[in-house]
Amino acid sequence: MAEPSDGDERSESELEIMRATYRALCDHGYANMTMQTIAEEYGKSTAAIHYYYDTKDDLLAAFLSFLLDKFIDRVHEVETTAPKERLDLLLDRLLTDREGNRDFMVAMLEMRAQAPYNDAVREQFQRNDEYICYLLKTVIADGADSGVFTVEDPNHAAEALMLIVDGARTRYASLEEENALEEARETAREYVESVLMEE
Amino acid sequence: MAEPSDGDERSESELEIMRATYRALCDHGYANMTMQTIAEEYGKSTAAIHYYYDTKDDLLAAFLSFLLDKFIDRVHEVETTAPKERLDLLLDRLLTDREGNRDFMVAMLEMRAQAPYNDAVREQFQRNDEYICYLLKTVIADGADSGVFTVEDPNHAAEALMLIVDGARTRYASLEEENALEEARETAREYVESVLMEE
Repeated sequence: MAEPSDGDERSESELEIMRATYRALCDHGYANMTMQTIAEEYGKSTAAIHYYYDTKDDLLAAFLSFLLDKFIDRVHEVETTAPKERLDLLLDRLLTDREGNRDFMVAMLEMRAQAPYNDAVREQFQRNDEYICYLLKTVIADGADSGVFTVEDPNHAAEALMLIVDGARTRYASLEEENALEEARETAREYVESVLMEE
Repeated sequence: MAEPSDGDERSESELEIMRATYRALCDHGYANMTMQTIAEEYGKSTAAIHYYYDTKDDLLAAFLSFLLDKFIDRVHEVETTAPKERLDLLLDRLLTDREGNRDFMVAMLEMRAQAPYNDAVREQFQRNDEYICYLLKTVIADGADSGVFTVEDPNHAAEALMLIVDGARTRYASLEEENALEEARETAREYVESVLMEE
């Protein structure tokens, strides 16, 4: 098995397998996705995938890590350092179905619901969550330092916003609630302006 | 198949099947729960279950309806009509793992993640959600009428609180985040006091 690699160090083959996994999840859902369906999307044999990932669980954990890196790349594109604007940007990115693909959000909810049974996947979900919470907490703490936000516990504020994000994703995927992400963006705005910026 | 019945009209056999379903979900999770595992918990044959429920999907939809009725019963026990107190009570009930049983919350998240593939289950989830949203909206609108809450759109406020509830349940079940429900109760309190009761 290849060495673990971070975003920039993935080989072109690994990136292709990650893209094939994305398509396989969209087309088959989580429950019906196998190494074989990923291999078909990849256009090579399952052995070519096993060269990089011993098991399907390893591959899924690597896929979650890939999603986190993509998210971080998109957030880093933006140049503002003003805390309120950076927080708005993070929330915009977290509460958009960027690909306009609910099938993918459905597959992600399935994977998440299986996380209690799957250590590798759960631990990577936890790492992704911790990293995004850390990004939120940092920008909220920066805003508190500079007087933009009035908040005693940036960590709780970050967790509160993650509740809204995860609630939106669950409702969007499971209830066919088309406007769940927009409702959540508005709720997050209210929370920031009324709780984090109160007099 | 028996006539559809509401909470008060379920026969003792139907209630026993509902309790057996609860235990089967806790013990086996959603993916591994079959009519056979429910029958074992029930202590009778699968035929005895099929007398009431044609399919597993019918049974699961009936189980969700049963959970809603139980929730409504618990909410109706309380006598206060003051909007702020009633809203607090609803949020307390929605954000407690009453049985202290995360296995059940995990099974419910699995069922929810499969809802996109299962019309009967999804439609009952939607009905449950609509009913609870309606309870929240009504008490918020009452509070707005009596001047306790300052809110222009009780429907959005109810949806905002449901986002927090669903986010907490997803995080509690999938991330092993033990304090997700308490964090969410605090977030809901902040939302009510800062957004719904702002000056």
